[in-house]
Order: sequence, then structure tokens, then C-alpha cells
Amino acid sequence: MSDTQTPPSADSIASIGSIDSTDAGRDARHIARMQRKKDVVDAKIAAAQDERGVLVVNTGNGKGKSSAAFGVVARALGHDFSVAVVQFVKSRSDTGEEGFYRKVADLCPGQLTWHVMGEGFTWETQDPARDAKAAQAAWTLARQYLRDPGVDLVVLDELTYAFKYGWLALDEVLADLAARPALQHVVITGRAAPEGLVAAADTVTEMTLVKHAFKAGVKAMPGVEF
Amino acid sequence: MSDTQTPPSADSIASIGSIDSTDAGRDARHIARMQRKKDVVDAKIAAAQDERGVLVVNTGNGKGKSSAAFGVVARALGHDFSVAVVQFVKSRSDTGEEGFYRKVADLCPGQLTWHVMGEGFTWETQDPARDAKAAQAAWTLARQYLRDPGVDLVVLDELTYAFKYGWLALDEVLADLAARPALQHVVITGRAAPEGLVAAADTVTEMTLVKHAFKAGVKAMPGVEF
Repeated sequence: MSDTQTPPSADSIASIGSIDSTDAGRDARHIARMQRKKDVVDAKIAAAQDERGVLVVNTGNGKGKSSAAFGVVARALGHDFSVAVVQFVKSRSDTGEEGFYRKVADLCPGQLTWHVMGEGFTWETQDPARDAKAAQAAWTLARQYLRDPGVDLVVLDELTYAFKYGWLALDEVLADLAARPALQHVVITGRAAPEGLVAAADTVTEMTLVKHAFKAGVKAMPGVEF
Repeated sequence: MSDTQTPPSADSIASIGSIDSTDAGRDARHIARMQRKKDVVDAKIAAAQDERGVLVVNTGNGKGKSSAAFGVVARALGHDFSVAVVQFVKSRSDTGEEGFYRKVADLCPGQLTWHVMGEGFTWETQDPARDAKAAQAAWTLARQYLRDPGVDLVVLDELTYAFKYGWLALDEVLADLAARPALQHVVITGRAAPEGLVAAADTVTEMTLVKHAFKAGVKAMPGVEF
């Protein structure tokens, strides 16, 4: 895309007149419409020139919060970034993403570290003290990456549950996030992101559930759900 | 998680009575609450035993539609699935995901194919006939994967734009999707998924924009946005 700083020009606004219904007329209108879109996009790109680490939050009840984070890991590795992933909830031991990225980590030593820290869903362990300890240990580890300017991307998968159950203090987490290196990106996932986290984030997506195969009786399928 | 088919039992409903405010009392209430959640989750898992390929649609204006698809690619490869990715819009030539997965494809020959088929955003090319031809060529290729039972996952990235601009007929695409192998998974991404596609899908997530760093003046950062 162009780097021009020129705003959309008056010339790009189509004149209102008789409508030419030939193919050539339709094409001309399409081209004029696309030119206007391009002008708007170019102007927005010209206005966004700040370079810094961004804090991304993927929340909501829909599918895609963690998988989007794992897709960003692929992107970051494609740019030869150094990446650390800390998973705060261990739902099962046979996830495709962990298996895949463990292989990738072996192939690019020092570029990717992956930690599964949780003890399983809280309704599995039913031991609040143990869950809190596991979350605090995970945060101690995460904080090391958040203090390391050599790490370009930190993924904190399913972190939000730690706030829901009171395992971690939001203020302390926000302070550690704010103190991270200026160019370090962070992706946080999990349902019900607290307001303070949303306020601190640069990019927030609510993954809204429209429908889910599971509700229609389809088992959680390997390769898609885990 | 347990495979039991037992519904939540009457015993798991907490009795209403005086509240014990000691730590032990709080822990007991937490455990009872978690047990009820676990019972509900277990019952839902027991009810979802259908195994088949799922059609996933990631739509909406928020970030994460394509990155979630690329995260599912990681999952699928972690389970040694065979994966094909067809990108219908080529926005830029230096994406991290393409660079990363090209390296991965070299490492696992025959397991992953990746095609970038589009000609750029339509407001870049401004040639509707060429855009339509590119989309149709991409669909011809995609259809080959949708007819191949050896392919476990097909990602059709940014496909929805082909409907918006009339490059592809929705009915034909839905027919090809419906005729695919029974266990093949498909992930489709893009804004404004048409109603017919949402109706045909098993799992649909609306990635809702809450906020985006770009709007606050931050440049599209490599490793996060591309």
C-alpha cells in the first residue's frame, strides 16, 4: 500500500448523474468506488505511524481466543521473533498446538519457549489453594519474560481465569505489563477479561459465540478444538 | 474429563442454610460450586459424541479471524493432519504466517500446502474482471482439496470477500463444501460472512472489534498484524 500522506482527494468523489448500465459503465463505477476506499485506507495508514509493542486481548465466549494467539505465534516466528508462551490453565495433555510448537522449538533453539503451568480446569482439581499457587507460580515465570527485552512476544493463554477466581491481583499484573520493554508485544486470552485489562490493552477482540458444533452434539475434534 | 453419561446428581445441589464464613467453609462452598460446574460440563461432553468434520467460520470486524485459522493449522499439524491453505486475498507479500509455514512445509513434506491466490485488496487492483478471475482460479484449486479425503483440514482465508464482490456464487461454494469428505474440517475467514454460509457452518465466531491499536495511531506491527 502507498505511504502517501495525502487525504482523500475531491476528485475521487464520484459525480451524481445519469447511470451508465453498460459493462464499461459498471466497471468505471466499481473502479471509482474502490479508489475512494483506497484513499480512505491510505489516509488511515498514513495517520498510524507509531511503532511500539501492543497489548492484545482476546476475550468473549466464542471459539478462537487461544487459536488466534497461536496464529500470532506463527506470524511472530515468521519474522524471526523470540516468543514465550505461558498457559495458565492446562485443560488436557494432548493439545495439537503444544505438540506442534514443541517440535518447532526444537528446530529453532532459543527462539520459542512454551510452558503449560495450570493444573486443569478448576472444577477438575477442586482445590482452590493449589489452583492459586499454580497461577502465582505461572505469573512469576511470565514476569521474567515481561522483564526481558530479548523476548519480542509473550502469550499469556487463559490468564483471565486467574482474576475471576482471585488467584492473581489485577493491579500487580497491570503494573508488570506496563513496565515491559517498549517494543514487546503481549497477547492475553480468556473469557470475561476484567475492565482494567481491557482499558490497558491496545487491541481487544470479543470473540462472540454465534454457534458451536459442540452444542449440536459434535465431540471436541482434535486439530480444531485442541 | 470423565466420560460418564450420568446427569448432574441431586446430591451436587448445595443445601441452603447458615453460611460458614471460615476458610474451611469458603473452601467447601468453592468445591461444591466447582463440582456442580464439573457435573454440567461432564453431562455436556457425554451428550456430544458425534465425530465428523466441522465447518468453522470466523467473521466480524475484529482482529483474529485469520490468526485463529493459522492457530488451528498449528493444532492440526500437531496431530499430524494433512493441511491445505488457500488465501483468497493477498494483502502484502511479507506476512509472517506465510514465511513461517513455508519453512514448516519444507520440514514436513506433503503435510502442508499453502497458496496465496489473490491479487491484493480490490481497492488496490481496481480491476473487477481480474479480481473475479483470480477468485475463480482460487476456488478451482480449493475444490481439489475439498474433494480429497487425504486432506484433513482446508483453510479458505478471506473467502467471504468473493461473495461481497460477486466473484463467486455462494450456492456453488456451499455445494462443494457439503460434498466434501465426512471427516474433513474447513475453516473460512473474512468479514460479513453471508447468511447462507453461517447457516451451513457448525461453529461460527463473530470477532467483534472492541478496540484496535491502529485506530490509536499504532502502525500495523510485524509479528502481530501480518
